[in-house]
Amino acid sequence: MKNKQVLLKERPVGMTTADTWQIQEVDLPQLKEGEYLTQIKYISIDPAMRGWIDDKPSYLPPVKLGEVMRAGTIGVVAESKNEKFEVGDWIMGWQGVQSFAVADGSREVNLKDLVLPPEKYLAVLGLPGYTAYFGLLDIGNPKEGETVFVSGAAGAVGSIVGQIAKLKGLNVIGTAGSDEKCNYCIKELGFDSCINYKNEDAFDQLRKATKGGIDIYFDNVGGKMLDFALSRLKFKGRVVLCGAISQYNNTTPVKGPSNYLSLLVNRGKMEGFIVMDYKARYQEAALQMSQWMAEGKLISREQIEKGLDQFPSAFNLLFSGDKRGKLILEV
Amino acid sequence: MKNKQVLLKERPVGMTTADTWQIQEVDLPQLKEGEYLTQIKYISIDPAMRGWIDDKPSYLPPVKLGEVMRAGTIGVVAESKNEKFEVGDWIMGWQGVQSFAVADGSREVNLKDLVLPPEKYLAVLGLPGYTAYFGLLDIGNPKEGETVFVSGAAGAVGSIVGQIAKLKGLNVIGTAGSDEKCNYCIKELGFDSCINYKNEDAFDQLRKATKGGIDIYFDNVGGKMLDFALSRLKFKGRVVLCGAISQYNNTTPVKGPSNYLSLLVNRGKMEGFIVMDYKARYQEAALQMSQWMAEGKLISREQIEKGLDQFPSAFNLLFSGDKRGKLILEV
Repeated sequence: MKNKQVLLKERPVGMTTADTWQIQEVDLPQLKEGEYLTQIKYISIDPAMRGWIDDKPSYLPPVKLGEVMRAGTIGVVAESKNEKFEVGDWIMGWQGVQSFAVADGSREVNLKDLVLPPEKYLAVLGLPGYTAYFGLLDIGNPKEGETVFVSGAAGAVGSIVGQIAKLKGLNVIGTAGSDEKCNYCIKELGFDSCINYKNEDAFDQLRKATKGGIDIYFDNVGGKMLDFALSRLKFKGRVVLCGAISQYNNTTPVKGPSNYLSLLVNRGKMEGFIVMDYKARYQEAALQMSQWMAEGKLISREQIEKGLDQFPSAFNLLFSGDKRGKLILEV
Repeated sequence: MKNKQVLLKERPVGMTTADTWQIQEVDLPQLKEGEYLTQIKYISIDPAMRGWIDDKPSYLPPVKLGEVMRAGTIGVVAESKNEKFEVGDWIMGWQGVQSFAVADGSREVNLKDLVLPPEKYLAVLGLPGYTAYFGLLDIGNPKEGETVFVSGAAGAVGSIVGQIAKLKGLNVIGTAGSDEKCNYCIKELGFDSCINYKNEDAFDQLRKATKGGIDIYFDNVGGKMLDFALSRLKFKGRVVLCGAISQYNNTTPVKGPSNYLSLLVNRGKMEGFIVMDYKARYQEAALQMSQWMAEGKLISREQIEKGLDQFPSAFNLLFSGDKRGKLILEV
């Protein structure tokens, strides 16, 4: 058996291309005492990965050239010399874009059996779900009756933010990149409204939808939408900085929010967070969200691409907007 | 006796000019029961005034065309039909750019006697002082040993921010627009360092001075300095948005901070405030700061321009950088 791996070959300028990645097959190493082998089943593909392959300091060190691309994974123990990991156990971890990984258990979670389909553990019960949960509840500090505006509303994080906000009694307005996505937000997820930002009169529609102002803006996209949201911010409004997908492939400097002085006039704040800081509270989120799922109050959808060879093209689906829900690669 | 008044005649595009203002003399009205007349002695000239004369919604309604320009003032009761106001009492209020004002006491503070020179009540014991006090302590939330970076360091607010920060055990780095101002910050106010941003290698010097990073950036200027500070922000760093004097006379859109994603990477926050929200706590600040002044731990300097006719030119000193300390107009 061979291990197929996707390595970072070249740092991209702008969008990644086929040249960014190298796909190789290598022999599986022999396990040492205390190690086990995961056969990776599903790999999470996330916008944050674009930041990890730039050569600049951030909250995680950049992926090095020639290294296996960093990614969240779920898989099954195929072989073990570690008594805490039995063949057949389901393992969540950061095992990278490859078909097998050797580990010692120090950085992975052994889920043993699953109660939900495995892809859910990379979505609503994984980092995207926790990002939505802590970003909205801890950074956004929502109060019943307030209005939250969410960009990337149909995406892995935004779709959960909107649903949790509805569960907490907020008015939820979303924006997404197609009518289909907006319909999904309204009809399936219960958003109060959702505007397709690709419409010609999108900003007129957005102004109408937010005519009462915004208490919380959950920002996944940055750029023009952040400026729009700042212009609608209410007294003591909060901007939760989760991402800026519109800016990740820039070859020019990031567009700063021209309306940032709205924070001053409205005594608002804009705050960033990284979900990994909440590790000690992941369990709280997991328990609460599984309960909501069991009660039918929280749903998610995943788009599953198939085969490691598809990673380079699947990765760019993050930025083309041409996907529905959490993007996952099935190995 | 006549009342000389400075009215807003024309909304400026960019910097104000002689055409922005109209100076007129009108008769003093007869006092009604409950009213009193203040002879205004000193008028506060502040960067925030530039925002008040734009025709756009903000934390205060815009000054209307033909209205007396809004300003903080200190003066003496010259005549009274209100038993709470006796001739000779010192009055602080928002009595505008004029030599006399009629009021009923509902919006002014009767200080009776003064223990310090009157101009101090428009500076360290007035809104600039309170702005520094609440902005640093309440929004910045400083901890002993942290590093604060202050722009407009020699100005009415910045100079107080730096001194309070030193009193609280912080490392204080400033930036100001001349060597004289920087020397004043270091030698008179006790800043640890101060960089003249007009130096050719200013940003190299700033990078050296802040090589350990910034916990708090107290922003009075916006623009490039805000972007610089964001690039130096430490984990959980705070940006206190107090003003953006570099942007107030823009005829093009405000420059948004291109480095705002540093807030995300560093889990930082950027928060705006308006000192008027702290009205219920002004007394706390006044008592604490007068004590520090009495102990010789807090000093301020004022630049006093003379004569109402000088208001139009004095106003532009705010933006040319050609002033030292709090700008005040003596009537």
